[in-house]
Amino acid sequence: MGKTLTYKILEKHLVDGELKQGNAIGIRIDQTLTQDATGTTAFLLFESMGIGRVKTDMSISYIDHNMAQFGPENHNDHLYLQTVATKSGAYHSRAGNGICHQVHLERFGKPGATLLGSDSHTPTGGGIGMLAMGAGGMDVAVAMGGGPFYITAPKVIGVKLTGRLNDWVASKDVILKLLSILSTKGNVGCVVEYFGPGVETLTVPQRATITNMGAELGVTTSVFPSDDNTKAFLAAQEREADFQPLTADADAEYDRVIEIDLSQVEPMAACPSSPDNTCTIADLAGGEVGQVLVGSCTNSSYADLMMAAKVLKGRQIDPMIEFGVAPGSRQVLNMLAENGALSDLITAGARILETGCGPCIGQGFSPANDVVSVRTFNRNFAGRTGTKGDQSYLVSPETAVACALTGKFTDPRSLDIEYPDVDMPEHFDIDDSMIVPPLSEEEAKIAEVLRGPTIVVPESPKQLPDTLNGQVVLKCGDKITTDHIMPAGVFLKYRSNVPEYSKYVFNCFNEEGEKTFAQKSLELKAKDVGSVIVGGQSYGQGSSREHAALCPMYLGVRAVLAKSIERIHKANLINFAIVPIVFADEADYDKVAESDELVIENLRDAVKDKDTVEIVDKTSGTKFNGKLELSQRDRDILLAGGLLSYTKNA
Amino acid sequence: MGKTLTYKILEKHLVDGELKQGNAIGIRIDQTLTQDATGTTAFLLFESMGIGRVKTDMSISYIDHNMAQFGPENHNDHLYLQTVATKSGAYHSRAGNGICHQVHLERFGKPGATLLGSDSHTPTGGGIGMLAMGAGGMDVAVAMGGGPFYITAPKVIGVKLTGRLNDWVASKDVILKLLSILSTKGNVGCVVEYFGPGVETLTVPQRATITNMGAELGVTTSVFPSDDNTKAFLAAQEREADFQPLTADADAEYDRVIEIDLSQVEPMAACPSSPDNTCTIADLAGGEVGQVLVGSCTNSSYADLMMAAKVLKGRQIDPMIEFGVAPGSRQVLNMLAENGALSDLITAGARILETGCGPCIGQGFSPANDVVSVRTFNRNFAGRTGTKGDQSYLVSPETAVACALTGKFTDPRSLDIEYPDVDMPEHFDIDDSMIVPPLSEEEAKIAEVLRGPTIVVPESPKQLPDTLNGQVVLKCGDKITTDHIMPAGVFLKYRSNVPEYSKYVFNCFNEEGEKTFAQKSLELKAKDVGSVIVGGQSYGQGSSREHAALCPMYLGVRAVLAKSIERIHKANLINFAIVPIVFADEADYDKVAESDELVIENLRDAVKDKDTVEIVDKTSGTKFNGKLELSQRDRDILLAGGLLSYTKNA
Repeated sequence: MGKTLTYKILEKHLVDGELKQGNAIGIRIDQTLTQDATGTTAFLLFESMGIGRVKTDMSISYIDHNMAQFGPENHNDHLYLQTVATKSGAYHSRAGNGICHQVHLERFGKPGATLLGSDSHTPTGGGIGMLAMGAGGMDVAVAMGGGPFYITAPKVIGVKLTGRLNDWVASKDVILKLLSILSTKGNVGCVVEYFGPGVETLTVPQRATITNMGAELGVTTSVFPSDDNTKAFLAAQEREADFQPLTADADAEYDRVIEIDLSQVEPMAACPSSPDNTCTIADLAGGEVGQVLVGSCTNSSYADLMMAAKVLKGRQIDPMIEFGVAPGSRQVLNMLAENGALSDLITAGARILETGCGPCIGQGFSPANDVVSVRTFNRNFAGRTGTKGDQSYLVSPETAVACALTGKFTDPRSLDIEYPDVDMPEHFDIDDSMIVPPLSEEEAKIAEVLRGPTIVVPESPKQLPDTLNGQVVLKCGDKITTDHIMPAGVFLKYRSNVPEYSKYVFNCFNEEGEKTFAQKSLELKAKDVGSVIVGGQSYGQGSSREHAALCPMYLGVRAVLAKSIERIHKANLINFAIVPIVFADEADYDKVAESDELVIENLRDAVKDKDTVEIVDKTSGTKFNGKLELSQRDRDILLAGGLLSYTKNA
Repeated sequence: MGKTLTYKILEKHLVDGELKQGNAIGIRIDQTLTQDATGTTAFLLFESMGIGRVKTDMSISYIDHNMAQFGPENHNDHLYLQTVATKSGAYHSRAGNGICHQVHLERFGKPGATLLGSDSHTPTGGGIGMLAMGAGGMDVAVAMGGGPFYITAPKVIGVKLTGRLNDWVASKDVILKLLSILSTKGNVGCVVEYFGPGVETLTVPQRATITNMGAELGVTTSVFPSDDNTKAFLAAQEREADFQPLTADADAEYDRVIEIDLSQVEPMAACPSSPDNTCTIADLAGGEVGQVLVGSCTNSSYADLMMAAKVLKGRQIDPMIEFGVAPGSRQVLNMLAENGALSDLITAGARILETGCGPCIGQGFSPANDVVSVRTFNRNFAGRTGTKGDQSYLVSPETAVACALTGKFTDPRSLDIEYPDVDMPEHFDIDDSMIVPPLSEEEAKIAEVLRGPTIVVPESPKQLPDTLNGQVVLKCGDKITTDHIMPAGVFLKYRSNVPEYSKYVFNCFNEEGEKTFAQKSLELKAKDVGSVIVGGQSYGQGSSREHAALCPMYLGVRAVLAKSIERIHKANLINFAIVPIVFADEADYDKVAESDELVIENLRDAVKDKDTVEIVDKTSGTKFNGKLELSQRDRDILLAGGLLSYTKNA
């Protein structure tokens, strides 16, 4: 039986376990990336580990999330990260240099390598043929220290691409199509691998859009073959030496095969408030739009923005539309500035935002109340724009530009405009002057790390109790995202300060005048009662932010009890010694109410080697079972009191 | 006796009173401008007046302050202003089109005209020979309705310029020099008028830098003659028809003359935390700098940014410096994008911020703790950067760029670089497509005004009581700015919502766990006790924000008792029926303590026609006199219950 590309790369990196689907395996990580919203914790934990210098082929710290700088926190973070990263032997990409995934693709991504990033859109690297995965900062810290990364050897979903995209149809529409098929749930433990004759019709940036937003499927990662297009992209980035051809065997067997004929894909949108709530733009045509944004790690490549500039050249956006463009990297921005395209965008009425994540992570550009916002981003969870009750639609740059011109939902094919020809440049502008290289070991010895007063070393988890005396502090429904758990937006700046940031855990559920989740949990913690969160399906989906585990841990949360828990978040819970428990019978979800007192006897023993725990609801007087879906390593980490202690003890 | 330029312009616009120094006079306003942080209130009040259409030669609403858009408030404001302004017969400059003062100079400023703007830096227009004054939004609303603007016929300080600036010395250094002479206090009721042979060596944008930051002197405005340079600037903006030559009579007599030999001016800085805390850059040389910002209405012209780009071309900023550049207008941004200068800035390591006020008004780019920030802005009041305990220095673009290159305070003359030659363009890029023209009366009839839920019509003041039973809610010291009274930064977005914004009155003095100023005042209001604020010298200096009167009014403040009160703020107090009282004997300031109960009997009668009130401090058992420095019109407004009622009754 032939091998999938996924398993070929895994095989080359296997350091622990047997490479057999469903097994826990440890793999060597070649590269790591962190961004500033997760990176401060990652580096604080890395420092706690006492390893000194990174042990990967290359590690890099990016600044792209917290660039608004309302208050000293963001700049404090930037200075900490620049000084700690370079001292630790890592690169540091400064604020203004671009979004981590875009810059990494341009300057560091390498076919066949493994990349672990403390950002859920790290799979962007799959577009260049790497096995690129998102994880919590703690996992990335361990990988920086040379430790393996543990996953379950995945199922592989093969997506066979045939045909070729029509004019005005974008690779964004392909991933929206796939989201309409696979949805955001039920794909935990899978890798999506693209193959077939349609692959060669897509450039590396187009592929990267697909693997990037593959994160919304809830899969481990997505990956494309490495071929002549990959070689051309690397050559244009002066990195041809990093190229190697990579592909699945012709007779590779996939767990499931989905065929997408690119020529049949239509312009799509994800409607509020989930990336899989899809329809065609034709279905929406004519509806009013008030804001249009082009950018984010999904759609801010040179080709995306050049297409936008060429369509807009000599035209004017609708006068009631607020139109923002955020280039993905300094390379993209500078090429547009040099070739006149930036001026075309400005003349058409675009507001040019800084190169960074910006509005995609709720950092500005919130729409007015009742205004439809059309965005080329990857997530449209409720409230993520910063406006309660927002109506956020996710589309391709082609569709976004069409909406900006007309002020309405517009199928770009219906514009009476010739689709612009945007060739991939044979040579990108190479300028790494905003990437600070690692200090030498000699230099590092005397280099000072700048720690502003808002950089606070996080507390370590307490040991698991033998018996958990707990109380349900919150019962929530399905599809709770890490955005619900730990809001970004104006709170994102507290990422380096757990006691402060913890005040806003589940802020979306806090009611004015009532005790907050944080206050209730801390009161229980003071009485030695463990807080328990009860959730529905896909608890913890969305971004990889480990603060969604770290801050609840600080507040005294000891267990999450849900119908299902997403992969990265589950790993984060374990890393911070919070026990992830799944209802054995989903119907039991209805038996538990908020404020119920729960007791789990012999929890420690169960975590050691059992698959089930009995949960007694003292308030309602019922009992039910919870499943512990844990690898041996997960168990060891929980018993050690989290990954940091586990790693230190190892 | 010859006439000053100031009096020539006043004479042509006089509609009420006798033009004699010290008299209250009413003048016709030809043009008005509002920005979004003050404009929503101005237009809400304009709507309340029921006038319908503006009656000036031209009125314009600009968006430049609140462009960060964290939450729906900002975009709600933009939509309200665009729809209400154009319906009212005014122009609307959309977000992204530039800073009001920069755009107004480029596209609308007219020698000899009067301009009233709800922004304290409106005197920028003095650079093109207009009499341009800042005022509260209420005054601007009245002017939009065709009402006169009332001032005291001013003293005129003549500043005689001789010589020519040396290389690397900027017009910013001239106004810093003047601030070192005149300071920020004691210049109320004065106009600064420039004359002499040095005038012709300065371009219009250079002059505008000087008149802009003249606002920091506390004067009514500053004005330059209109000459061949003015004509050339207007011609380059395709507005030669707006030109007329204007100058003081050769034998004009000034109340005071200050001579500045431009060739003797050195690179200067305003040190923390006042614009008049000046020294030379040489005095600071070598001190560490961590952040450099170029932009703001003071220093973001085409020439300023071209100079910066030329110096930085082929060079790289210091790797520990955070360097931001915010072009002043879309015209400037687009010209830099087209001629390659933007690319030079990006390549050197600049982060390009949106065209707008941005960090100058605390909207982002706050420095890290203990990091020195060097800015080309006009104000460095403590905390204005968004960082408590900030160290903010105000300098010229030349000095800023030098600091960015070296990472230290650097006299730009000490760089081993040839001073770049930046000629004023013979033709600026003209593109007014982001300026929405007024609707016709026909169109206006059916046009809808968009009012998001965060746009709240402000409450009207209550009538003045016969006897004021009051309590001192706050006693503060000298130089309290309107930034102290009403914080900008993250609170700026509440400008359209007085009940919400009022929560943050004097937020800088609120202590955690203690009752806020707002809470204390509202409690007194509920008991029908009037709140009184006691201040020192120059109470209310800084920006023109009328919320510094409007919000205290909402909270129940009935009087401000201070050693001196700045002009614009005093007018705002009167407009919102808060009585401004000045200590007859400054020593009495020491007799009053916070929480003291004060009684002013027959206050209403005193406001009618007396110059003094007796204030009884019941708590300490002392009495002292306060002065009422009020024109007849001020008295009428106070007795009518504020300017809105006064105007409606008129």
